[in-house]
Amino acid sequence: LTDFGLSDHYVGVMKGVLLTHCPEVRLIDITHQIQPQSVLQGAFCLSQAVPHFPPSTIFLAVVDPGVGTLRKAIAAEAGGYRFVLPDNGLLGMVSERLGGELRAVSLAVPESASGTFHGRDVFAPAAGRLAAGCALEDLGERVEELIRLERRQPHLNDTRWSVSVLFADHFGNICLDLEKSLGESFFQLDAKYKVGESVVTFGHTFGQVARGESLLLWNSSNYLELAVREGSAEKLWGLSSGSRIVIEKV
Amino acid sequence: LTDFGLSDHYVGVMKGVLLTHCPEVRLIDITHQIQPQSVLQGAFCLSQAVPHFPPSTIFLAVVDPGVGTLRKAIAAEAGGYRFVLPDNGLLGMVSERLGGELRAVSLAVPESASGTFHGRDVFAPAAGRLAAGCALEDLGERVEELIRLERRQPHLNDTRWSVSVLFADHFGNICLDLEKSLGESFFQLDAKYKVGESVVTFGHTFGQVARGESLLLWNSSNYLELAVREGSAEKLWGLSSGSRIVIEKV
Amino acid sequence: LTDFGLSDHYVGVMKGVLLTHCPEVRLIDITHQIQPQSVLQGAFCLSQAVPHFPPSTIFLAVVDPGVGTLRKAIAAEAGGYRFVLPDNGLLGMVSERLGGELRAVSLAVPESASGTFHGRDVFAPAAGRLAAGCALEDLGERVEELIRLERRQPHLNDTRWSVSVLFADHFGNICLDLEKSLGESFFQLDAKYKVGESVVTFGHTFGQVARGESLLLWNSSNYLELAVREGSAEKLWGLSSGSRIVIEKV
Repeated sequence: LTDFGLSDHYVGVMKGVLLTHCPEVRLIDITHQIQPQSVLQGAFCLSQAVPHFPPSTIFLAVVDPGVGTLRKAIAAEAGGYRFVLPDNGLLGMVSERLGGELRAVSLAVPESASGTFHGRDVFAPAAGRLAAGCALEDLGERVEELIRLERRQPHLNDTRWSVSVLFADHFGNICLDLEKSLGESFFQLDAKYKVGESVVTFGHTFGQVARGESLLLWNSSNYLELAVREGSAEKLWGLSSGSRIVIEKV
Repeated sequence: LTDFGLSDHYVGVMKGVLLTHCPEVRLIDITHQIQPQSVLQGAFCLSQAVPHFPPSTIFLAVVDPGVGTLRKAIAAEAGGYRFVLPDNGLLGMVSERLGGELRAVSLAVPESASGTFHGRDVFAPAAGRLAAGCALEDLGERVEELIRLERRQPHLNDTRWSVSVLFADHFGNICLDLEKSLGESFFQLDAKYKVGESVVTFGHTFGQVARGESLLLWNSSNYLELAVREGSAEKLWGLSSGSRIVIEKV
Repeated sequence: LTDFGLSDHYVGVMKGVLLTHCPEVRLIDITHQIQPQSVLQGAFCLSQAVPHFPPSTIFLAVVDPGVGTLRKAIAAEAGGYRFVLPDNGLLGMVSERLGGELRAVSLAVPESASGTFHGRDVFAPAAGRLAAGCALEDLGERVEELIRLERRQPHLNDTRWSVSVLFADHFGNICLDLEKSLGESFFQLDAKYKVGESVVTFGHTFGQVARGESLLLWNSSNYLELAVREGSAEKLWGLSSGSRIVIEKV
């Protein structure tokens, strides 16, 4: 998982490095199209993907606006999975979701490392060594405290939720930062809610409303989603990452 | 093959599910950038890709505007290949192309399945079970009749073909819904044809015309193609999927 | 590596052909989003990726504006790696970088080959045969002279470098055609340089300047790069591939 995109040699190079360290490794891409420098979106995607992979999978994740600065590079273990990534909050949502103990070590940055491509020179070599059988503790010094992800919490005020837009997905569905476990009692199937100035039905799937019509639902990640059937909520609603929106009972 | 795009965790999650069901499975992407909800484009790409894969390959294809509704989810076998996909016409062009017997079963949708992500909760588990050695018949009840793909046929009226635009590819080449087997006698190499209001040469490869100039040819899928050398026919011609266009002898 | 993009069946089909020739082959994508027909960008990406892969890797690279014309299709060996690609300069930068002996043979184009998709009908079959153990010499006749890549050299005139823009990467960082080995003595860390009409600091990593501010640096490929911290130099500077730009000491 990276924000490197697919148009350059960057991702391919990291795979070459991984194969050089561990010729038998099996490589799976989650996504390389995290919005550039969006640690929050990276953290979210990682948290959604990890639990569906077999135990002992190693996740190499690089969304790293602080590359080349003093931010730590780490390897970590949580819930039976291992992770190699910058210490900037990227691990935050998945470690919350997995719960349990988290162990982390700090990776050394070699003198020869590029100031702009630790994916190639720091992270991929560490992930390759883990894949080849190296223990977490052999990669570096224990780290006790990790950087936390900054996130504006959803807020319930009597009859209205104030929530943040996380991001829009490929279809233009808008993922809102409110989990089902928090909001389940507030939202009822087929009930109507005021979203900004509009009134929208809460549903179960896209097919329940007419084409081009909006609906609210719990998405496949169990977050609140604002969607448009066979259309783009991102375009229709004009909301972008970080926007705050108010939803109230009608 | 999906219309899920590559910017979210969706495709990665499906791969995680596949690996969990069958750790040895080998995963190949055809494309995840089918136009959102375009069953026709998905059906075309699938039909072009399948015959180039080794027998016994399993194709997991999800372009599914009806996800969460009563449309069936199916697994099927045709021409030695197996398929897991929604019953919405997506299998249509490839089953025509493969010919022979088609067997299909209906997949159960678990209570716990998300209303918006059957790729993760219905299709990937079924494909994973097939890959792990499960028989088609063990996945569900036999289905006799599949949904057909709606498609507007090409029409020859004396000296003019009226044909539909299927879609434009990555280069902007416009693929038209007329197969070589139907139109071969009409189009002659180096002859000229009136396309809309313009006159275009019928050729064999892009290098035959000057840069920026249009040509007609049988493309690598043996469909009629309107192309611009080192340019985009989609931009130059302004045609979009479903447009009808008339081509006549000069 | 191709310029085929990821929205069509083209790349998937080539993988199917490779698997049909060699069922055990391991497939790694470098990129399929080279700018359409940009042999120079393809040559650059290939040259950056190759040295990070294990010896004996086979590289299948198709950026081929001359597909279907008389340009040769070749297979080659250099520095322990093998390559299958069109003879149009695509191999130029990597063979320079690898140095040493270069052997090449010319691939036959079968009568049945599509005039627009040699990736499927010529290049993938040859790469598949190499992967399956076929010797380079068994693929075709020896070729002595390869086509050279056209490239405008950087030029130092007393106190000013005149350099070409190679391309912008996914982040909008502008890669300039000046290698560190040539320009190292001219550029000093933390010194300031006039780029066009603006003054820009030469740095080591993005974090050294404020958000939205430009800097010059040696990028991870050891080429000169014009970047904007957490922004796009491509958008800010409005430079495109082939533009010439002058950089002088302040």
